[in-house]
Amino acid sequence: MIRISIDAMGGDHGPAVVIPALMTVATRRPDIRFVIYGREELVRPELAKFPKLAEVSEFFHCEIAVRMDDKPSQALRHGRWKSSMWKAVEAVKSGAADACISAGNTGALMAMSKFCLRTMATIDRPAIAALWPTLRGESVVLDVGATIGADAHQLIDFAILGTGMARSVFGVARPTVGLLNVGVEEIKGQEEVKEAGRMLREANMASMNYHGFVEGDDIGKGTVDVVVTEGFAGNIALKTAEGTARQIAGYLRAAMSRTLMAKIGYVFAKSAFDRLREKMDVGRSNGGVFLGLNGIVVKSHGGADSDGFAAAIELGYDMVRNNLLDRIEADLDLFHARNPHALSSRKSDVVIDAKE
Amino acid sequence: MIRISIDAMGGDHGPAVVIPALMTVATRRPDIRFVIYGREELVRPELAKFPKLAEVSEFFHCEIAVRMDDKPSQALRHGRWKSSMWKAVEAVKSGAADACISAGNTGALMAMSKFCLRTMATIDRPAIAALWPTLRGESVVLDVGATIGADAHQLIDFAILGTGMARSVFGVARPTVGLLNVGVEEIKGQEEVKEAGRMLREANMASMNYHGFVEGDDIGKGTVDVVVTEGFAGNIALKTAEGTARQIAGYLRAAMSRTLMAKIGYVFAKSAFDRLREKMDVGRSNGGVFLGLNGIVVKSHGGADSDGFAAAIELGYDMVRNNLLDRIEADLDLFHARNPHALSSRKSDVVIDAKE
Repeated sequence: MIRISIDAMGGDHGPAVVIPALMTVATRRPDIRFVIYGREELVRPELAKFPKLAEVSEFFHCEIAVRMDDKPSQALRHGRWKSSMWKAVEAVKSGAADACISAGNTGALMAMSKFCLRTMATIDRPAIAALWPTLRGESVVLDVGATIGADAHQLIDFAILGTGMARSVFGVARPTVGLLNVGVEEIKGQEEVKEAGRMLREANMASMNYHGFVEGDDIGKGTVDVVVTEGFAGNIALKTAEGTARQIAGYLRAAMSRTLMAKIGYVFAKSAFDRLREKMDVGRSNGGVFLGLNGIVVKSHGGADSDGFAAAIELGYDMVRNNLLDRIEADLDLFHARNPHALSSRKSDVVIDAKE
Repeated sequence: MIRISIDAMGGDHGPAVVIPALMTVATRRPDIRFVIYGREELVRPELAKFPKLAEVSEFFHCEIAVRMDDKPSQALRHGRWKSSMWKAVEAVKSGAADACISAGNTGALMAMSKFCLRTMATIDRPAIAALWPTLRGESVVLDVGATIGADAHQLIDFAILGTGMARSVFGVARPTVGLLNVGVEEIKGQEEVKEAGRMLREANMASMNYHGFVEGDDIGKGTVDVVVTEGFAGNIALKTAEGTARQIAGYLRAAMSRTLMAKIGYVFAKSAFDRLREKMDVGRSNGGVFLGLNGIVVKSHGGADSDGFAAAIELGYDMVRNNLLDRIEADLDLFHARNPHALSSRKSDVVIDAKE
């Protein structure tokens, strides 16, 4: 049995999108149980539509809902201990749930997750990992915006975190891992990236096939299973790809409505276009997975529809089912046992966090 | 009369692509003159096919051609003073040409351009600017890979350089300028970016409409005329966008050949698809413009066809015609006259360069 805690108030649409998604997943995964947090008067009517869902769910009323435009500090001030988002995260900490899913605002969810769950013992900073569609399938890309800048040790943490996720989600025993850089030659790029590359090559880990540097265009090609970068470049890469996809969708719409012939062609090819639109639709992607915390938190896209939110739940389910946290902890222990200097040379920011 | 120096040996195809491009431009711009550098036995036969081009061109034989895979240091060692690439850049320095175009390797061309032309008096580092197709037309994005990292002063330099280019190429009197960041709020992002933002807002320059921060997806939207970032993030954004465009082209091809209906639709819409392919084809983009040097150097895409190389020449032509360098120098002078501390607080790397 896998128990998932749900912040029903997150996202642009709230319970109206979240609850039907739970029903979808409950049908597909009979061993799933939900712990749902949200405002009674909004969630109960939706739940009433799915009696079968009610059988596998517990619901708890929360007075407070974090708003999509709350700053992380505001959200913590108003929503700590009592908002649906906080309660959903806390359920993971207390053991009431194995993973938490929210479509709420990313900064608030990350702030609450860090505060409540804490980073893993040897991890300085959490990362947000995206599942990136590629020509070969999907890749894990991290960090896409949890923090700005990363030293070599933090990049290695991200590599280990991302590898654990790729093993859990793709079922690959030894995922290929690349460090995002401005060239593939070993002499190119930021010092931190070069140092991380040397250390990963030397570490030669059993669970990770270190490929070397990759460039921006390798992400869409699917050159590696895991692309590692710091949060500034990663966030810009992710948003630039989303922007490019939207831009080309715009060109395509314009091209298909320009002439009569094109319009006729569109009618014939409509179902092919619909499939293509699905592939290009960033709103359908699963948002981000928070890695490096003592618990699994999945951030679904704020604008996600029920299918998108269901996909985010199933992603969390798969990671629990495949023991993501145990895998990551085993790999971190193994790496640090062989590289004891790596741990002593880093400065932790956990103490600062606690005072926020 | 505008004189353009041409490295005929650059690019994947060399003179066979370069020389026909010159003919195309010579027809469209009767006041253009070319100074061509390359290997006699390869260039002369191509030139012989276009007697009209020969009338507006001078040709100089160069024994050495920089290879596409030469490292910058190798290229400087073997090619300085004598390669076709060096000679083309040197023609700008000596005044024999107003701008230089090469499809040769970027690192070598930048190394030679820095060595030969030097950076402008108040500029620490040159930038490579890309013309980025957007939903609204085109934007200037810089730096896309000349150097890694940039402090606030260097970001401001890039903003001034990019503004000059946008004014010259788009004919906009006061281009909008955005700093690439991971959020649009003033409190977000790298310290350098935040400081540059404050300084640009305070400077309130007559030639520049400072918009604020922009995110990765704003580039394709065309939110601003000029997007400013340091070279690491800029290069990753550019390559990620190229990769995404290629990825979607792959999806489109697959979608249009999957069913009979889709194939029929494709036949009807073929000309629309051809137009779309042209828009998405990164090989047709003009490569990059080197900014911040005492001379105009345009790097055409290595894989460019004749139309692509012709576009790069016309870009250089337009920048000369519209007094790019004078505009940039006037803006730099104006900025530094009002912000004298900006100049004294920076460290120049010009001396180091001279010893390379």
